[in-house]
Amino acid sequence: IESKFPNTSESIFSIMSKMANDHDAINLSQGFPNFESDPVLIEMVHKAMVDGHNQYAPMPGDLKLRQAIVHKIEHLYGKKYNEHTEVTITAGATQAIFCALAAILSKGDEVIIFTPAYDCYEPTIQLFGARSVPIQLKPPFFQPDWEEVAEKITERTKMIIINTPHNPSGMLFNEEDMIALQELSEKHDLVVVSDEVYEHIIFDGYAHQSASKFPQLAERCFITASFGKTFHNTGWKMGYCIAPETLMNEFRKVHQYNVFCVNHPVQKALATYLEEPSRYLQLSDFYQQKRDYFLSLLTESRFKIVPAKGTYFQLLDYSRISSERDIEFAERLTKDHKLATIPTSVFNTLDEDFKQIRVCFAKTEETLKRAAELLNTL
Amino acid sequence: IESKFPNTSESIFSIMSKMANDHDAINLSQGFPNFESDPVLIEMVHKAMVDGHNQYAPMPGDLKLRQAIVHKIEHLYGKKYNEHTEVTITAGATQAIFCALAAILSKGDEVIIFTPAYDCYEPTIQLFGARSVPIQLKPPFFQPDWEEVAEKITERTKMIIINTPHNPSGMLFNEEDMIALQELSEKHDLVVVSDEVYEHIIFDGYAHQSASKFPQLAERCFITASFGKTFHNTGWKMGYCIAPETLMNEFRKVHQYNVFCVNHPVQKALATYLEEPSRYLQLSDFYQQKRDYFLSLLTESRFKIVPAKGTYFQLLDYSRISSERDIEFAERLTKDHKLATIPTSVFNTLDEDFKQIRVCFAKTEETLKRAAELLNTL
Ligand SMILES: CSCCC(=O)C(=O)O
Ligand SMILES: CSCCC(=O)C(=O)O
Repeated sequence: IESKFPNTSESIFSIMSKMANDHDAINLSQGFPNFESDPVLIEMVHKAMVDGHNQYAPMPGDLKLRQAIVHKIEHLYGKKYNEHTEVTITAGATQAIFCALAAILSKGDEVIIFTPAYDCYEPTIQLFGARSVPIQLKPPFFQPDWEEVAEKITERTKMIIINTPHNPSGMLFNEEDMIALQELSEKHDLVVVSDEVYEHIIFDGYAHQSASKFPQLAERCFITASFGKTFHNTGWKMGYCIAPETLMNEFRKVHQYNVFCVNHPVQKALATYLEEPSRYLQLSDFYQQKRDYFLSLLTESRFKIVPAKGTYFQLLDYSRISSERDIEFAERLTKDHKLATIPTSVFNTLDEDFKQIRVCFAKTEETLKRAAELLNTL
Repeated sequence: IESKFPNTSESIFSIMSKMANDHDAINLSQGFPNFESDPVLIEMVHKAMVDGHNQYAPMPGDLKLRQAIVHKIEHLYGKKYNEHTEVTITAGATQAIFCALAAILSKGDEVIIFTPAYDCYEPTIQLFGARSVPIQLKPPFFQPDWEEVAEKITERTKMIIINTPHNPSGMLFNEEDMIALQELSEKHDLVVVSDEVYEHIIFDGYAHQSASKFPQLAERCFITASFGKTFHNTGWKMGYCIAPETLMNEFRKVHQYNVFCVNHPVQKALATYLEEPSRYLQLSDFYQQKRDYFLSLLTESRFKIVPAKGTYFQLLDYSRISSERDIEFAERLTKDHKLATIPTSVFNTLDEDFKQIRVCFAKTEETLKRAAELLNTL
């Protein structure tokens, strides 16, 4: 059989997590917490199973959970979505992004993405016969260049994908960015996908500029979100997508034949758990503490800290330590120094190597301390 | 936005389950049990969460679960798959079918399907630019006509999808069918998708002819399976796909960017639960009892029982009662008689109406008794 995807290989997350295991290295590569989800939430899932919510959920998701999401968004961002027609619960944000792209893209379409870009955008764009048009975000601040975006829009441009807070850089799209995006997407009649999985992890008092805050942008936008990132259970694979009804109708046509619906007891539990907003509102403080702790241990290190405003990732510039390519440096760090990280060039569709590695600090203080000790020896 | 799927509407399962709710009707439409999953299994999921298996599973699935599946298949069908390279755990069988089709099909390809056909095949075929070529299975026995299949194979035929035990008819592909399929698919170098979600629900001593029993067929075959159907928890959305390594490599390229991985605690629980084969081997007896009970209540009814050998569905021929189209008949049955079923013509890409409705008998005896009483009034 001739491969449809001759250039697709195993994802960097699988590769690095395996390498971490094989070399008994501390795993700061793949983004997941090494501490536990709230036992209260676990007991809620258990109760939902015992109460008998073990058969198919409605295709768009449990209605009470959709209502809870709508309330959250209205409260935080001032936009009122319709829980019946504008929210769908998904098997993680990845499946939400997949369905949004599948629903819209056709052969020959062009999609603007910002690189470094999360790894699932590019192959999904290609699967539906479209082509990505990368815009490079440049260190140290990784701010988008809207003039470059405007130049790269053509007749064939169908979509722009943004990611704020941005993985791997921790950059936030600010209000001006969102307004620029809104203007360009209106002017050229583009669909926007706003990947906001780290919306609740923002530092130093900055505000998340959700696409839902910008009415004309929200009108043409799929927003994707993740419970796994917010409630420390990436392995439950639960997320959602919100979009105006016209877009959501198309989204659901894919979703219904992709998975039909998603885990029902987890949905029931989350519907109850979301009733208490402090459960997600405290997340920024929680992670800021970890970030600040970790960085405080690196003040003497030869790594340069790349300034970041959100996500649970931190970029480290190793140019004072080595001139290796980041892939080689990350491999050596794992094998010889027992610390697994992500080389950021794998997120680039442009062939740039900024001598940076990404570390995930969603870890216990003990793990962060051991990791910092290793980094300080370099 | 112009729709990519102007002809796709809400699935019949959502429509009928909603109609059942709205009219307070007994719901024998969408296929799911109305009794509980084994509490032992529920406690195993709880334990997995408490034990901290709440972060990403490996992309292809928990290794112990993959091993348990490989053992099961070897024991039942004599074929040894490789747990590392030939098994992937999926978000239900629907997602497995989706990935198999996405991995193989391109614009212009033709796919042989047998109608009535489960509703997700056709839209997924179309999503990837391919075209279905339907072969009608005809009542009362719904046996495939391999001469017709041979005639309909062209240069463009890339795939055949089979479903055994067959939803909605309960027909089984027998050994001769599988040999005919093997010969044709070898001769024309076709990929086969064998949807075997009801493999453990087979009546009257018949044997399931899994594609894995036929070595040259297995060499070119994706087999998809469902835990939800087997362990009474359709809402946990857990299934798997097995295929030879060359095909599985391609499958995983889609899976990894579609969902990356699936619910980890449920996988851990199933790995343990599968250790006791009686847990799935008893399923045929369990459902045969329900089927026989239900049919024994219908001996005086004017419905004709369509002979079936497996699945938890039963077709009922209403031609002695009404000459309405099945869609109208099913709607009237729901609204006026408070019994929701599935009109089988919705599974047909060919425009045939056999005056049959499908009932799901994965229900408590009490529900089956009330349903039979309603049917007996007609
Ligand atoms: C799907 S595994 C990757 C997790 C993640 O979001 C990341 O590490 O960037
Ligand atoms: C995905 S809902 C449909 C369940 C089912 O398999 C059926 O009713 O045929």
